[in-house]
Amino acid sequence: MPAQSNKPTERLHQVSQHLQPSPPPRPSTRPPAAFRWRPALPADLPVWHTPLNPITFLLKAALIRPDHPALVHPGRAGGGVSWTYSAWAERVAQLAYALRARGLEEGDRVFVLGPNVPFVSDALQAVPAAKMVLVVVNTRLSAPEIEFLVQDSGTKLILVDESLVHLLPEDVVAGGGKVQVVRCVDTGKADDPYEQFLREGAAYDQKLGGKEWAGLEFHRDEESTIAITYTSGTTSRPKGVELTARGCYLAAIANAVESRLTDNSIYLWTLPKFHVLGWCFPWSTTMAMCTQVCLRAMDYSVIWDAFLNDGITHYNAAPTVQIAIVGHPKARKLDRPLLATIAGAAPTATLIQQLEKLGITVVHVYGTSEVYGPMTRTYYVDRASPHYYRDMAKQGHAFLTADDIRIVRLTPEGEPPTTDLTETAPDGQEVGEIVLRGNLAMKRYFKNEEATKKAFAGGHYHTGDLGIRYPDGTFAIVDRAKDFIISGGENISSLAVESAVAAHDDVFECAVVGRAHEKWGERPHAVVVLKPGSKWHGKHAEFEADLKGALRGKISAFAIPEWVEVVKPEELPKTSTGKIQKVALRDRVKKLSQ
Amino acid sequence: MPAQSNKPTERLHQVSQHLQPSPPPRPSTRPPAAFRWRPALPADLPVWHTPLNPITFLLKAALIRPDHPALVHPGRAGGGVSWTYSAWAERVAQLAYALRARGLEEGDRVFVLGPNVPFVSDALQAVPAAKMVLVVVNTRLSAPEIEFLVQDSGTKLILVDESLVHLLPEDVVAGGGKVQVVRCVDTGKADDPYEQFLREGAAYDQKLGGKEWAGLEFHRDEESTIAITYTSGTTSRPKGVELTARGCYLAAIANAVESRLTDNSIYLWTLPKFHVLGWCFPWSTTMAMCTQVCLRAMDYSVIWDAFLNDGITHYNAAPTVQIAIVGHPKARKLDRPLLATIAGAAPTATLIQQLEKLGITVVHVYGTSEVYGPMTRTYYVDRASPHYYRDMAKQGHAFLTADDIRIVRLTPEGEPPTTDLTETAPDGQEVGEIVLRGNLAMKRYFKNEEATKKAFAGGHYHTGDLGIRYPDGTFAIVDRAKDFIISGGENISSLAVESAVAAHDDVFECAVVGRAHEKWGERPHAVVVLKPGSKWHGKHAEFEADLKGALRGKISAFAIPEWVEVVKPEELPKTSTGKIQKVALRDRVKKLSQ
Repeated sequence: MPAQSNKPTERLHQVSQHLQPSPPPRPSTRPPAAFRWRPALPADLPVWHTPLNPITFLLKAALIRPDHPALVHPGRAGGGVSWTYSAWAERVAQLAYALRARGLEEGDRVFVLGPNVPFVSDALQAVPAAKMVLVVVNTRLSAPEIEFLVQDSGTKLILVDESLVHLLPEDVVAGGGKVQVVRCVDTGKADDPYEQFLREGAAYDQKLGGKEWAGLEFHRDEESTIAITYTSGTTSRPKGVELTARGCYLAAIANAVESRLTDNSIYLWTLPKFHVLGWCFPWSTTMAMCTQVCLRAMDYSVIWDAFLNDGITHYNAAPTVQIAIVGHPKARKLDRPLLATIAGAAPTATLIQQLEKLGITVVHVYGTSEVYGPMTRTYYVDRASPHYYRDMAKQGHAFLTADDIRIVRLTPEGEPPTTDLTETAPDGQEVGEIVLRGNLAMKRYFKNEEATKKAFAGGHYHTGDLGIRYPDGTFAIVDRAKDFIISGGENISSLAVESAVAAHDDVFECAVVGRAHEKWGERPHAVVVLKPGSKWHGKHAEFEADLKGALRGKISAFAIPEWVEVVKPEELPKTSTGKIQKVALRDRVKKLSQ
Repeated sequence: MPAQSNKPTERLHQVSQHLQPSPPPRPSTRPPAAFRWRPALPADLPVWHTPLNPITFLLKAALIRPDHPALVHPGRAGGGVSWTYSAWAERVAQLAYALRARGLEEGDRVFVLGPNVPFVSDALQAVPAAKMVLVVVNTRLSAPEIEFLVQDSGTKLILVDESLVHLLPEDVVAGGGKVQVVRCVDTGKADDPYEQFLREGAAYDQKLGGKEWAGLEFHRDEESTIAITYTSGTTSRPKGVELTARGCYLAAIANAVESRLTDNSIYLWTLPKFHVLGWCFPWSTTMAMCTQVCLRAMDYSVIWDAFLNDGITHYNAAPTVQIAIVGHPKARKLDRPLLATIAGAAPTATLIQQLEKLGITVVHVYGTSEVYGPMTRTYYVDRASPHYYRDMAKQGHAFLTADDIRIVRLTPEGEPPTTDLTETAPDGQEVGEIVLRGNLAMKRYFKNEEATKKAFAGGHYHTGDLGIRYPDGTFAIVDRAKDFIISGGENISSLAVESAVAAHDDVFECAVVGRAHEKWGERPHAVVVLKPGSKWHGKHAEFEADLKGALRGKISAFAIPEWVEVVKPEELPKTSTGKIQKVALRDRVKKLSQ
């Protein structure tokens, strides 16, 4: 297979204008168009109750707006693809049947590893439609990390982009594991193994009687898990977060309302679809019956072409991506409305100002993996106020379908509370932990009762983020959990990096903290004490190179420390009980950046 | 008490500009503003589950948009009132406590009888907040009908507008019944008995510790009944329709999305709030955090002043009201967007055309009391098509949060089916009964198992309306089953004939019913109101000939009315919600045949 290319010739506007025709009609056994897109419900539900399920939005769009472009993909060099809502919904059903054809059953996990290309969008609809469970993972993880997630989730089948097959465990790729692998070369052509897989599904459906969607019965219990999204592993191992059909349905509605998606919108996939299921926007866009545009790689030149020429109205991104957007040479003031939803880390007032200068409306939201992506928003900040940009950078209030967050008092030792959740004073001063509950809180950590119990202490999900509450009820994050580093929208656990650094033969002790970085927001900074007899004493630059080389492939590339500082043992600040004082270390590192 | 006056001096624009100040702050025992508007949830809910409840929208608006005008009331001559979201939410809590102060408990029915004035809006929020059950009834019913509803609902307390007290049973008014009565004079002044009642609630809250909303625990079960809305009882006795918290929440969301309510909207209450709870728009408007404008009486001059001067962006009304709007002398083309949501009876293509000529965007919806008001909408009709107006008059597809409707085959005797619900062919021809299920279907008829069982035959709610399904999945109402005219073995849709008659230039409004005919069994009888300036006034026989001539070739010969009767506007019998009373018309016409 050829290596992936991400050429700037993948131009959106060349493709978004002409749609691929829908596939030719099937044999006459198929359900009539009027009934083709109807969710199949369990037989004996009460007359007044239908389980909430985000896949209903796709089917509604296919019924009501069959010929509207749903999914547009500029594709790889040479040509793109796009599907109308009816054509896409048909492909989604084929994928659901293909999973069944391979022997997968209700509740089985389907692993999805790919960039922002159509098969990932297909999977986000088809896997829940087949009553299986989505596991959509970060494409920038290392092979060992991927292997852990495959094992932890008990995956039965992997849908993988050809460019990422090398990240999969060898026995799995070779067919020696029990896990099936389906590759997608992202050509959309008949000989693409993914397209063959869809045909396998269509054939299986035909064998069963050609019922299409009528044969894909929906969940009876709306609180069934439809996806597991993995945390980046703040402590050691990543944890699987179980998200339900009801939660995804209500999160999708809230997103569409808060980000003002309408049927005229054209949404550009700058946000990774693997990032908490693309913040549930795969279903917000179908709810709005609007058009989604895929983006194989983050080429900022292509993004600006899309903004300027392709009628893009909405995109989502973390602050680092936004910084790259406003800083790009092609950036110029837009004469059409464009709305950017920002989350992933608190945007600076400077960034909000820069976006607005380009004519980009900012919707600032906040959330975590455990709360379906974003679930709070900054509302109604007075444009005329001298504090406009400062206030826009606050985290605001909970979404339409979310319960209000709470900020609760830390223990006298400064630790997050467990049982006694007393709210802090709403004085804009007192720092507490951000906790929450409600329909946009996860169901549990997958097969991890202990972690669930801990995270749900006192009947609320504990974000590990610190915040303050203002008198008007708005809140702001003061600090992410202290050991968290956010780099280019990726969460890096300093503990995990420390574990890897400490594995080096010459490292005696180490600590890793975030250090400000112009492009990435933050990058890891490692402070290392060498072992007494180490050959690297006095050769710090050489040691740095050696350490970085050793880390490569063991942890994600983005987690490898940008800076490695060798210090004497007494230079590592510690508490009286021997804990490294991260706060003091961050303070010292902050000065280095200035 | 003085008689009600509905003077044109009640001018919206004089009032909507200056808001009443919020009440003075309470003692310092009250919860801080940051926490004041938080729903009180049962203690031991799962972390990930909050029962859906439409009252959360009011509390969110009070928290997020405290100073935005929520409820504006031009009021009676002499002055109006208006409340911001925070002031209004405070009054709503007072009303909830006042109901408790009078000894009412969870599940008790509260009867609401009033025009479109603020206390009715208060009740629509406060009664569910107190976990009681709303019974909002039609102000145009007769005293015996009101008495029946008071008895049937087992009402404990009646909130009544002073002008309607005479409709209540005498013993109830005299205090001889077990039902309490609270009057509202609609002055908003301290000596108004309703304002005194609110103070009673505030005092009771204080006595309990001044918890305000924190003391009003929400329903644990989201499928709890929060309202009973009565059918108009065209057959025998009205039936109470039980609507749930979950249903109202999901209906409110769908309405806001389908009618494009946003936080910039100003919604005018032309639709009675008692009409299926104002089609759930009391909660759609709070969900959108927009402004509602009350309207004590249907003064079309005042309505046009509001359209022209007060920035109204949305209103809802049945076709008869829309006909009066487009026919009013003040009507002229608007230069700002105004969106009219139409339901209650099928609008004719002519009416849609007239509205659009005035710059009014039409959202055509369909529903019944049993489905939370509207639940289907006409989507995406091609503006360039020669069939645009015809297609706009179809009923379209189910709402965002509703399941698709079904059209099922009638029995060989032409009766609605009970067990075997086979769908009709989607051919735009076959007539069947419209049935449905899902989150926007009622829970049951109140204390009427037999009627519930009948209405839910075959696991779907039976609307009693006849419809046809088109190949694209849209549907259209052909007629109410009862209004269908069978003439010489041919089925005639009274709606189709009305559409054709309404297209005549001189017709202001019309109705068509079946009238006994010796030879054909039945033949159509048209009752017509001529436009004010029509040349046919006084020349009814000539008009009849002209109309019949105009209809020839447009509708089947057997569908052309055998009789055309010209009447004065007040002679067309209407229900209180503005629907033409076909039953009364048929009765009258029956006498003509004898």
